[in-house]
Amino acid sequence: MTTISLSLDEIYSIAKKTLLVNGCNEKNASILSDTIMKAERDGSLSHGLFRLPAYIASLKSKKVNGNAKPKPTKIAPSVIRVDGDSGFAPIVLSVGIPPLIELAKDNGVAILSVTKSHHMAALWPETESIAESGLVGFACTAYKPMVAPAGATKSLFGTNPISFAWPRKNKTPVVYDMATASMAMGEVQVAAREGHSVPLGTGLDKKGKETLDPKEIADGGVLLPFGGYKGSAISLMVELLSGALLGEWFSFEAQKLDNNDGGPPRGGEFILAISPDKIAGPNWNDHAEKLFSKMKELKGVRLPGERRHQNRLNLGPRNINKELFEKIKKLT
Amino acid sequence: MTTISLSLDEIYSIAKKTLLVNGCNEKNASILSDTIMKAERDGSLSHGLFRLPAYIASLKSKKVNGNAKPKPTKIAPSVIRVDGDSGFAPIVLSVGIPPLIELAKDNGVAILSVTKSHHMAALWPETESIAESGLVGFACTAYKPMVAPAGATKSLFGTNPISFAWPRKNKTPVVYDMATASMAMGEVQVAAREGHSVPLGTGLDKKGKETLDPKEIADGGVLLPFGGYKGSAISLMVELLSGALLGEWFSFEAQKLDNNDGGPPRGGEFILAISPDKIAGPNWNDHAEKLFSKMKELKGVRLPGERRHQNRLNLGPRNINKELFEKIKKLT
Repeated sequence: MTTISLSLDEIYSIAKKTLLVNGCNEKNASILSDTIMKAERDGSLSHGLFRLPAYIASLKSKKVNGNAKPKPTKIAPSVIRVDGDSGFAPIVLSVGIPPLIELAKDNGVAILSVTKSHHMAALWPETESIAESGLVGFACTAYKPMVAPAGATKSLFGTNPISFAWPRKNKTPVVYDMATASMAMGEVQVAAREGHSVPLGTGLDKKGKETLDPKEIADGGVLLPFGGYKGSAISLMVELLSGALLGEWFSFEAQKLDNNDGGPPRGGEFILAISPDKIAGPNWNDHAEKLFSKMKELKGVRLPGERRHQNRLNLGPRNINKELFEKIKKLT
Repeated sequence: MTTISLSLDEIYSIAKKTLLVNGCNEKNASILSDTIMKAERDGSLSHGLFRLPAYIASLKSKKVNGNAKPKPTKIAPSVIRVDGDSGFAPIVLSVGIPPLIELAKDNGVAILSVTKSHHMAALWPETESIAESGLVGFACTAYKPMVAPAGATKSLFGTNPISFAWPRKNKTPVVYDMATASMAMGEVQVAAREGHSVPLGTGLDKKGKETLDPKEIADGGVLLPFGGYKGSAISLMVELLSGALLGEWFSFEAQKLDNNDGGPPRGGEFILAISPDKIAGPNWNDHAEKLFSKMKELKGVRLPGERRHQNRLNLGPRNINKELFEKIKKLT
């Protein structure tokens, strides 16, 4: 793969410039470019510049509003809703997370309901920012159907990621962000291209049979949930929390109603923030560190988020796929 | 297996009598017997009379208080704590769930923190009762370490079950309750006894190597989380939510401090209730039913909880293991 070297500032600038000339206003472009730059910084490449062409496609098709001005509303004593004004999720979250944090600090727990928004970024930015405020964060969202519920051979669930973050005093949070699908379809495609097999349980071929061949999954087959029927149950929870609970679309509805411009469909995001200060009292941090120490003593265990936070310490330039860079340049 | 036939009333009566003569007061015995009878009724056998000898052992050793009088306290505007007074969880929940439901209906979301309690029942009774009140329920609790975090070869996490329930109008809720371990150790022991192999990923032998032989797992090996590192991340969340967040013990602390009488160690339970009425507005039920219909259209898919609710319709007697019955009779 041919790459070119770009500083984090350059990554931010090229993203922002591209968004500005394609219909984002200054504020929308700044927030989304920051999200993209931070994904590249942390090595979360599939959520970095790689997503930009799809974002642009959705701005061009007018599915997504690049001038979104979402506003938070308190709809219950412990619930805030942000109607996304058809904007990209990071813009919606930028106005929803701060009041969520305040409410959870006051009440012990609070929910942020994000509706009429388009999410194709990672979920760790939102849970991590909640944890950086000393709170526990949880988030989930549904996506287009690509995953067969356990027992079925046809897709109904999205890849339905969940993210959880635990706050630590004077340390970066413990954070994870994972699809409830066994694997991202992109990874299956990479395995197919490179001629690798995938583990049993990754997906089914178009006849609904288990296969180790990623080509057979990518070619009209379906992904399976991670961990069989248990992962399927968690994926169902994601559909219900980010769909029916928020009055937003399930994966199958999002697909039906999407214009297929390549960008993210409309959907909801469920976000929960909880205050350990209010619930456990003052010693929760020292207590949690005991568990993390025990985990680190076990050979082979990494705390979730460590790798990303390690990548973050490198302030130098990043290697960007040259083909992708050229593609993005053509969009400006 | 030789069995004897007992009506649901008889199951309740034998449980209650046994608890009463072993140190439970009337109220504690009634609540716990109801939990045991309902587990037998629903076919959730491992949580029925099977648990009674261990409950009795903990009453005899005085680890668990059979006269527990737990009281709920509102510790934040959306959080209730019940100090369990060293009682069994069902007694603690009987006073904690009703105010949790009221608070969630008012505020949109609320947490119940159960501390200083001993849990060895299923979790579906609590989430199901929340859902029967029109709310979404989620619960989790940690247990003694039996599960190695992904990448490790030694146990640190408990079997750490989670339960989720979704309310339905005029129908039994969609409910699941599952260990975040690949399999219960009891199931591994049954497979060993019957000479079956277990799927790869179930556990490790005592040298830390993957094995398909349940004997090697049961004999000094460890269980693995379901679904590899993703299930492991969820098991970590359970440790944090039911341990550090509530100011209660992690699995490894519970083990260290337990008297090993065979009954459940002390621990915390995290319970969340959310109001779809407050968040989605009035149409959430019809909307959720659309997803459930889609699932039912797929061949091979069952809604979580259906089998248990089907069993419940049978009001006739249940077949109880005779050996277990004789064992229980000796305890009265």
